[in-house]
Amino acid sequence: MEDRVRQIMDFLVETDGLKGIYRAGYLSDRSRHESDAEHMWHLGIYALALQGETGFSGDIGRVLTLVLVHDLVELYAGDTYAYDVEGARDQAEREEKSARKLFGKLPGDVAELFYGAWREFEEQSTSEARFARALDHLQGFAQNVISSGRSWTENGITRERTSLRTSFPAQYSPALAEIVDRLYARADEEGLFAPEVALPGSESVIPQREEKA
Amino acid sequence: MEDRVRQIMDFLVETDGLKGIYRAGYLSDRSRHESDAEHMWHLGIYALALQGETGFSGDIGRVLTLVLVHDLVELYAGDTYAYDVEGARDQAEREEKSARKLFGKLPGDVAELFYGAWREFEEQSTSEARFARALDHLQGFAQNVISSGRSWTENGITRERTSLRTSFPAQYSPALAEIVDRLYARADEEGLFAPEVALPGSESVIPQREEKA
Repeated sequence: MEDRVRQIMDFLVETDGLKGIYRAGYLSDRSRHESDAEHMWHLGIYALALQGETGFSGDIGRVLTLVLVHDLVELYAGDTYAYDVEGARDQAEREEKSARKLFGKLPGDVAELFYGAWREFEEQSTSEARFARALDHLQGFAQNVISSGRSWTENGITRERTSLRTSFPAQYSPALAEIVDRLYARADEEGLFAPEVALPGSESVIPQREEKA
Repeated sequence: MEDRVRQIMDFLVETDGLKGIYRAGYLSDRSRHESDAEHMWHLGIYALALQGETGFSGDIGRVLTLVLVHDLVELYAGDTYAYDVEGARDQAEREEKSARKLFGKLPGDVAELFYGAWREFEEQSTSEARFARALDHLQGFAQNVISSGRSWTENGITRERTSLRTSFPAQYSPALAEIVDRLYARADEEGLFAPEVALPGSESVIPQREEKA
């Protein structure tokens, strides 16, 4: 028992580090980048607010578990930018290694709980994991729109390239498709995308399941 | 339908503001204060990691809902520091007003979902709400220990005053009591508390249910 409690305590202290892993996107007031911890929290709010609108009929508690846990592996693997072709190549491998290292510090049953939730999100084989991922892509896109596209400008992300990130939520449900449409309308109106200079189709080399917004 | 989606979207954008509401406590690297959003996320991780150890047998999904939502009202009410006697006096009133204003922007059924979760946490009448609050107090205390007591130093918080915050988790379960003990041992070893200069019992005017760590 005593060692178990210490292992869990150490894990809780170590996961504080997710507040210091920053995503490419900014807060809406553009005061700083959004932390991984904040992104995961916001997904929980997205899930609660959108479950009814999307007609989600699965286990919402499981969705919350998946979104709260899905980026923990970035503690060692770091955040891989949604449009980072190079980083995406070995992302799965880096994250699997990170998951084993991080969750391996916990007592076996607790480790399994976290590893299982992370794998479920990655494997996309349950309705909860699909809802969680649709929200993950939607929030990342929305975060860029509400922070005036600053990370798109900084990284030369064109409107076309973002379609890779918005297709999953757009196809998930009519309500999410409507939100995506409205976000595009706002982004177009405010001129947030970088000019189209990228080679057409150049983003297709990024395996879809490995991206982040 | 269309207005509903817009209302939800606006709410999701507005709740981004919780990433810019800072608590008294610092991140463990002391690079900045912890945001409300990060605190709520971390509580979700605490809940998942400690549910087995505490023997919690309720609905863990509901616990996650409560912790993710419980500080949303601080968007308008601001964070009230755990040891702020003055701020605690009208905290309940300010937060109720904030809840009605914020959740009132949502479609009725979604508003009820959020308001209900917030009220459940405040009223402490379910096992889920009690577990959530025990974790809330524990995390706030732990956050100060792992950031070398910086906010205690800044605010002159003595060891005695912290007992108001640690009594709830300490009484909640043996596992949480053990964690509290270990955190105190670490805090004592590192000399993190302010010297005892406060009047004995001066903290008792803060109603316990209104505090934050």
